[in-house]
Amino acid sequence: MFKTSICDLFNIKYPIILGGMLWVGKADLVAGVSDAGGLGVLGAGGMTIEEIQSEFEIVKSKTDKPFGVNIPLVRPDSEDMINAAIKAGAKVIVTSSGSPKKFTKMIQEQNCRVMHVVANVKFAKKSEEAGVDAIAAEGYEAGGHNGKDEITTMALIPQIVEAVDIPVVAAGGIADGKGFAAALSLGAQGVQMGTRFVAAHESAAHDNFKEALLKIDDNGTCITGRTTIGPTRAIKNELTDMIVKAEGEGASSEELFEMIGEGRSIMACIEGDCVQGSMYCGQIGGKIKELKTSKQIIEDVISEAQIVIKQLSSLI
Amino acid sequence: MFKTSICDLFNIKYPIILGGMLWVGKADLVAGVSDAGGLGVLGAGGMTIEEIQSEFEIVKSKTDKPFGVNIPLVRPDSEDMINAAIKAGAKVIVTSSGSPKKFTKMIQEQNCRVMHVVANVKFAKKSEEAGVDAIAAEGYEAGGHNGKDEITTMALIPQIVEAVDIPVVAAGGIADGKGFAAALSLGAQGVQMGTRFVAAHESAAHDNFKEALLKIDDNGTCITGRTTIGPTRAIKNELTDMIVKAEGEGASSEELFEMIGEGRSIMACIEGDCVQGSMYCGQIGGKIKELKTSKQIIEDVISEAQIVIKQLSSLI
Repeated sequence: MFKTSICDLFNIKYPIILGGMLWVGKADLVAGVSDAGGLGVLGAGGMTIEEIQSEFEIVKSKTDKPFGVNIPLVRPDSEDMINAAIKAGAKVIVTSSGSPKKFTKMIQEQNCRVMHVVANVKFAKKSEEAGVDAIAAEGYEAGGHNGKDEITTMALIPQIVEAVDIPVVAAGGIADGKGFAAALSLGAQGVQMGTRFVAAHESAAHDNFKEALLKIDDNGTCITGRTTIGPTRAIKNELTDMIVKAEGEGASSEELFEMIGEGRSIMACIEGDCVQGSMYCGQIGGKIKELKTSKQIIEDVISEAQIVIKQLSSLI
Repeated sequence: MFKTSICDLFNIKYPIILGGMLWVGKADLVAGVSDAGGLGVLGAGGMTIEEIQSEFEIVKSKTDKPFGVNIPLVRPDSEDMINAAIKAGAKVIVTSSGSPKKFTKMIQEQNCRVMHVVANVKFAKKSEEAGVDAIAAEGYEAGGHNGKDEITTMALIPQIVEAVDIPVVAAGGIADGKGFAAALSLGAQGVQMGTRFVAAHESAAHDNFKEALLKIDDNGTCITGRTTIGPTRAIKNELTDMIVKAEGEGASSEELFEMIGEGRSIMACIEGDCVQGSMYCGQIGGKIKELKTSKQIIEDVISEAQIVIKQLSSLI
């Protein structure tokens, strides 16, 4: 069932990958997704090497299935992070925000797979040239940091699938069986879901954040940061209103950086301040109306996708 | 084959609808799409009532299949346009840029169908309340005028499908059988394609525009007009560079309007000035590498979608 090249590559049952989420994607969620047949990916962007190790100890105590880690290559200690994660048992390194040339070979030599996150065809080709095993192609509708080109999942996936020969994982706008089937229709070999898993029982997001997510509609997110850290999608709140206003008034980078960045994300994800904190979330958040376990999320995606594909088959 | 509720509603063979395109969607293209089993839609936004009538005379001389017209409700004479179009034989009125409440009943009383174009769930619900027969839901990746909320096709379609009971047609990011199958996966009952048909032999776009379209990549379009006429997607060129620069520098509406508007669209579409003119185009333009007849476009979409769905079926 839904056994694609991504399943073979990552040694997983279903081609469903947990997006690496800062402060949110911790051990319980990683273990939950992996144990249910997907690939749990630790969101290690804000973690120390010791935290990565201790999180993976918890993961291994909960499941014997493969798991991975997301390493933003802008981190100056990313090489050490990668080595520590592999030593702690990670089988897939998802790299982002940097060149895949630097560590791909080193990772693969340690019997580990590399998937690089891109947001346009140019970087998909560069990633393939660098020898990565797979590409996660992320559309403009995705939560958190986005590509500057604003290319949406619907437009991005078929263009990348045509441009490269390695497997492509679709990210952005996917939270159910409809989106999963659509991504496979576009030529993807799997999906990466972030926002859907924020609203998992096991996610480390503060309950206030989860509740805020369940309440938004299709128009509940917006982009800020175009002029500073690059486009970033989050749930609309007082903070985003403030940033949008400041950006519209031509505020300086210094002024804007006071309203942007890691601290604001901690405020929402950990401290539960959903007014002044930043809640990264994709546009598909409007469709998520219920907290579920990660196992239930994956089972529901698979069973809905089966129904969708049977309906499609009846049309031909 | 692919007989959905949209086929029954519009009395067409395939649920593929020509997006109403200013200066581009004229009689030859409308007739070509309808004759091939889709629904040709006249892009009447820039036409006089006499032009609508004469275009439809040509359409009727080329096909006996149903056809429609796109009426932007911002036009002060939209009621007269609608009545003239129905008298000339249009069977579907696609309304946009205005409230669907005003003319829906009047159109339906003349034995004609109404489809209203929306870009978020709120207006989809309002359209259903107004009694329209179908909704065209258009994502941020689409060419031309876009919704302010920037919701992408992947995120928009499943949320609208869930919110309303009438058939939904997906628009934005669709140019081939992959996109068609993906749209149906998301719950749409059909697709609307604009950009793909710009690059049809029968489209009225200037050859220079068609050639420019065939050359772009995934990153070949951009949004301008956020601060004035609303987000508008076009092929990047000297004009869009100039507008982006002016917008970044906080230019006044008056200054911006000199670079925006109908005249710029005429320059590109009719006069072939692809440097200073505006070429409306969706992000999926990067995947279009060949001019085809509208018949070939439709046949290729259908046959590729069949292959895609067979592949999906083999996974369950």
